[in-house]
Amino acid sequence: MRVLVIGANGKVGKHIVDKLKSADHDPVAMVRDPDQVPQFEEKGVDTVLGNLEKDFESAFYKIDAVIFAAGSGPDTGADKTILIDQEGAIKSIERAKHFGIQRFVMLSSMLADRPESGPSGMKHYLYAKHRADEHLKQSGLDYTIVRPGGLTNEPGTGCVMLQENMNNFGEIPREDVAETIAHLISVPKAENKSFDLISGSDPIKELLS
Amino acid sequence: MRVLVIGANGKVGKHIVDKLKSADHDPVAMVRDPDQVPQFEEKGVDTVLGNLEKDFESAFYKIDAVIFAAGSGPDTGADKTILIDQEGAIKSIERAKHFGIQRFVMLSSMLADRPESGPSGMKHYLYAKHRADEHLKQSGLDYTIVRPGGLTNEPGTGCVMLQENMNNFGEIPREDVAETIAHLISVPKAENKSFDLISGSDPIKELLS
Repeated sequence: MRVLVIGANGKVGKHIVDKLKSADHDPVAMVRDPDQVPQFEEKGVDTVLGNLEKDFESAFYKIDAVIFAAGSGPDTGADKTILIDQEGAIKSIERAKHFGIQRFVMLSSMLADRPESGPSGMKHYLYAKHRADEHLKQSGLDYTIVRPGGLTNEPGTGCVMLQENMNNFGEIPREDVAETIAHLISVPKAENKSFDLISGSDPIKELLS
Repeated sequence: MRVLVIGANGKVGKHIVDKLKSADHDPVAMVRDPDQVPQFEEKGVDTVLGNLEKDFESAFYKIDAVIFAAGSGPDTGADKTILIDQEGAIKSIERAKHFGIQRFVMLSSMLADRPESGPSGMKHYLYAKHRADEHLKQSGLDYTIVRPGGLTNEPGTGCVMLQENMNNFGEIPREDVAETIAHLISVPKAENKSFDLISGSDPIKELLS
């Protein structure tokens, strides 16, 4: 499958591109800045320029599935949380619909399904992610929403715990999140479902198979 | 009609309470802080305490219609734009549905129907208002969305220009916005419609009649 990775230059996004390639998919890395292109081209990965706050229509050309992994990050204001995490996601969903791309995987966040129970400093972020997730659920697309716990930069273990609703919070390496997403994108049983995700003992390659 | 005014202590909210009373409605002023109660009680206006970020369920008891006029204002961060302007509004819509209150009037903002064309410093605010307005449109409630232009503190003139879609931007006194909302709440032709609103020459009392 030719998979558009929105936010490919992000910390999880870079891993997603690699994991898609390892899984014999054909990733297309959408990046904002021309300086971000060479690192992907050196690996033989197609890139496309697109800015979530402006135009990124052309990115959806000849795409079979979309992964939204963009985020404004912790160093920008909450205005960018609205414009990127929420509205960038909603625009991406609408573009996918417009182009008839049926498969859409969202990198969300643990607690985005119940933002009112999040810590006060994160509530606005969780609500923004919640709105994007809700928009996807009602879009008619074949969605999968992945809500990982606290992200770390540890190397991936290849094993996780994936459940539709989890009561325990936990951490997980970004690499394992990326591998899980790259796996679930072609798993029919993952369609139209939302999952919490933390480190665990279940091999990613066997999830929902 | 017994009308719950959410954000009654705001600059437009205070006028709305007064205009509802003048129009022989029975306003209920929802305020966050007990210190904000006496100013309404002195006028014989019922008040109810409610915090949009916490609990305000009890405010909907024996209410016939809801006006959402709350806003986080320009002095707080965009996190509050999400939590108050967007999520506070969405929660209010959901509460109204839950309590079987069918009539809901939203104080929105000009350009909230096309946030992408707003000035860059206001885009996040316009998107937040847009999401709230969209939520209301899809709620099944009998909605009216009022999108005023630039708000001023000039005295009201009693005359405005109200159109479903306006290409010209303009200003309008908060008092005229309030009177328009207090008028439209009981006008059947205003139901399930959205309007831009600026100063003009049409008497408010005759709008859509």
